[in-house]
Amino acid sequence: MAEAGLPRTVGLLGAGVIGAGWAARFLLHGVDVRLFDPDPEAARKVGEVLDNARRALRRLTLAPIPAEGDLTLVSSPEETVSGCDFVIESAPEREQLKRKLLAAVDVVIEPDVVIASSTSGLLPSRLQRDMRHPERMLVGHPFNPVYLLPLVEVCAGERTSPASVERAAAVYRALGMSPLIVRKEIDGFIADRLLEALWREALWLINDDVATVSEVDDAVRLGAGLRWAAMGSFQSYRIAGGEDGMRHFLAQFGPALQWPWTKLTDVPELTDELLDRIVAQSDEQADGMGVREMERLRDDCLVAVLQALRAQDVGAGAVLARHERALLGGVPGREDGDAEDGEGRPLHRGRVQPEWVDYNGHAHESRYLQVFGDATDGLLRRLGVDAAYLDGGNSFFTVETHLSHLGEASAGDDLAVTTQLLAADEKRLHVFHRMTGGNDGTVLATAEQMLLHVDTGLGRAAPANGEVLARVRALAARHATLPLPDRAGRSIGMARPASA
Amino acid sequence: MAEAGLPRTVGLLGAGVIGAGWAARFLLHGVDVRLFDPDPEAARKVGEVLDNARRALRRLTLAPIPAEGDLTLVSSPEETVSGCDFVIESAPEREQLKRKLLAAVDVVIEPDVVIASSTSGLLPSRLQRDMRHPERMLVGHPFNPVYLLPLVEVCAGERTSPASVERAAAVYRALGMSPLIVRKEIDGFIADRLLEALWREALWLINDDVATVSEVDDAVRLGAGLRWAAMGSFQSYRIAGGEDGMRHFLAQFGPALQWPWTKLTDVPELTDELLDRIVAQSDEQADGMGVREMERLRDDCLVAVLQALRAQDVGAGAVLARHERALLGGVPGREDGDAEDGEGRPLHRGRVQPEWVDYNGHAHESRYLQVFGDATDGLLRRLGVDAAYLDGGNSFFTVETHLSHLGEASAGDDLAVTTQLLAADEKRLHVFHRMTGGNDGTVLATAEQMLLHVDTGLGRAAPANGEVLARVRALAARHATLPLPDRAGRSIGMARPASA
Repeated sequence: MAEAGLPRTVGLLGAGVIGAGWAARFLLHGVDVRLFDPDPEAARKVGEVLDNARRALRRLTLAPIPAEGDLTLVSSPEETVSGCDFVIESAPEREQLKRKLLAAVDVVIEPDVVIASSTSGLLPSRLQRDMRHPERMLVGHPFNPVYLLPLVEVCAGERTSPASVERAAAVYRALGMSPLIVRKEIDGFIADRLLEALWREALWLINDDVATVSEVDDAVRLGAGLRWAAMGSFQSYRIAGGEDGMRHFLAQFGPALQWPWTKLTDVPELTDELLDRIVAQSDEQADGMGVREMERLRDDCLVAVLQALRAQDVGAGAVLARHERALLGGVPGREDGDAEDGEGRPLHRGRVQPEWVDYNGHAHESRYLQVFGDATDGLLRRLGVDAAYLDGGNSFFTVETHLSHLGEASAGDDLAVTTQLLAADEKRLHVFHRMTGGNDGTVLATAEQMLLHVDTGLGRAAPANGEVLARVRALAARHATLPLPDRAGRSIGMARPASA
Repeated sequence: MAEAGLPRTVGLLGAGVIGAGWAARFLLHGVDVRLFDPDPEAARKVGEVLDNARRALRRLTLAPIPAEGDLTLVSSPEETVSGCDFVIESAPEREQLKRKLLAAVDVVIEPDVVIASSTSGLLPSRLQRDMRHPERMLVGHPFNPVYLLPLVEVCAGERTSPASVERAAAVYRALGMSPLIVRKEIDGFIADRLLEALWREALWLINDDVATVSEVDDAVRLGAGLRWAAMGSFQSYRIAGGEDGMRHFLAQFGPALQWPWTKLTDVPELTDELLDRIVAQSDEQADGMGVREMERLRDDCLVAVLQALRAQDVGAGAVLARHERALLGGVPGREDGDAEDGEGRPLHRGRVQPEWVDYNGHAHESRYLQVFGDATDGLLRRLGVDAAYLDGGNSFFTVETHLSHLGEASAGDDLAVTTQLLAADEKRLHVFHRMTGGNDGTVLATAEQMLLHVDTGLGRAAPANGEVLARVRALAARHATLPLPDRAGRSIGMARPASA
């Protein structure tokens, strides 16, 4: 078991977009998955979603991920749940179909195994009616793509036990998700009521030929959508209220709610003509991009947005940060092991952040030095330069740097820096860093640096002291046997004429 | 004029959250702003918004930003528009008030000056009724914070001229925004119909005690809000339809539109009790954070999300990327004045930002290279490397840098960089930068760099071409007479033993 709270084996009923997403999320957290879907193409489709999920997760986090679970496709619902300690139903949104499925598996597994439905809005009190053990049944409604979005709405039915809710919430948290407990059982729960309201209005805009699907999408993603990702609706409006906050906002924009700004009273009829129009506009927007390709683009955007919000510790970014700490805590050693030894093993790992990229599409040159600076800091920590040493009026300052750019790093690239101490005396460190990127270990850049030990009180060079000096000497002696790097000692010049 | 399309002076009527946001966006693009608002606190509030906007813009982009425009607060609407070549009305959402304002300024400025209203949903055909020159009036509806979100809905009234729409769209584009032309004049235009639909449903959820404001916000920002920022609504749903796309999605979820998942038929009455509840829940969510602080947190999130999407060249990120290329191409004027002459006069000026300072109390070493990189960009612009040149598949990449640190720069220090072209041929630039700080012109650092001209399509070195190559040769010839800097051609080494 990769983390406390996770089941050992999960049974999944249905392998559409949502079921396949659940499969990916569980498998990539080390949980074995048993899966049933009558679609003869299910294995291929799940495999494709899983490929996209692996790719997304590798970009999302540097935290240690457990070994993948095993995926088994089986041929009946009853077989699916055999030996499982958690079950999720993700069948089409038809109440009778779901009730039949739930009742069928209910009678074949231990009554303490929780069964969750992925329904977007059907009431659990109705879905659990034909079950012998309705207390174990609840709704756990996720959002597409399930392997990236942290939200899962948890809604109990009339007969659901509190223990089942707790168990399900623990499973979702262990998967890095954020369960939102729906306290009042209503159709559509919370999120889908909001989504449906927006979607219904969007359909009217198409129906009335006010806008195309592409214009509606731009109206969302170039404006309020950016705020929604960061802060949701109410908090955005609180800020829009200015110094007087929410009350002022409500006073100013409350009246508009009474104006005819939305098509309140009706639903557009999905005539063949309207369906054709939406499909044609959507095809035009997609511009030939297939669904898997579009999923990858969407995932890249979501990964980038999640990472951006993680840096702010806000919303879904805060959920991701918590999950990474949990993953790190659960797998001791790995990062420590890397830093154990500077000879050939990376002293520092990093990742190219989106904001590092300049107009050439690669990381700005100063960011390479930032990463090398982090590696130098890693070296200094290893030499015993800690807060106490700094507070005592000692530090090392870089006095010279020679950077060579040999390749290009793009947003999301993983970087590793290995560091060699070329020479040292009591006041100086002469170091050589190599930065490699990607899986193939291409050298992207090197940095040769001279650092001077300073008495920060006097503001001038002074010998390093005590344990730090001893460690400097020991490391210099060990590294003295390493070959001198090709690019060490270089100067810049144009002696040779340019080749044609 | 900082960029083609921008007015020289804009007149702003109203300095609430939206008006102040417009002021910030124009000022930071080098446009002079004349502003009227009856609020005696207007100057302070605009100043605070402007501070936050400056902070956000510095983080958003490394592209060269023109010198700030001048802000003038005046005491009447008529005085505001005097001498302006673009006018924006951002008064409260009351039709009569707006009509009166628009009619008042209409009679005092040249009829070819466009007047745009920021209204969220009032019809331009009604707003322009009392105007003598209604053809110049239209709606340009922005989104808060105006200085960061790119969306602006442009809606013409019955009597608006096509030329006015074109002029306004050009102004918005020059500000880095993305005008969405609303083809059919309807209440609420496009975006606010969608926002209002979601907001109305959210108010019902609070009213019916289904969820708190914090739960509603989480239901948005941990789920669909992340997708909305990246792709909007229709494109997300197309993907959710799986391999069968939009038609399958509509078939599967269309029926749910007929189910009672939203409160279609009514608007919750904003009773005192409901208002109090929303305000109390919002206060709890804010947890003591003031509006300016919360704005900064929101801005940091938006900046991070915009940068994340820029790396994917999607949605608002694609708009930002286009704007950066335009800024890069089109900042003659201020920076050119400085760059007029590389011999001794600074090619670049900057200031040490607080977030640049590391644990040693000085700017991090990578920030020196960031400033030198800006100076190199300044040199390249002077050599004619603009957006068109870059779009044509040409650029200069830094291949080597030798930095020498001779002093320390602290937060708030003004920096200046002078640049000497040591040598050049058709593929290479060998440059030497000197950074001085403070009033006494102490040399803080030097950077020697080798840049290679590349064909970015082929990804390899190639000769510079046309006007750029001619300018390179001319500058190299002029600089050939300058003495070689002491620190040019250095390498790093420890041949000498350290002095005691």
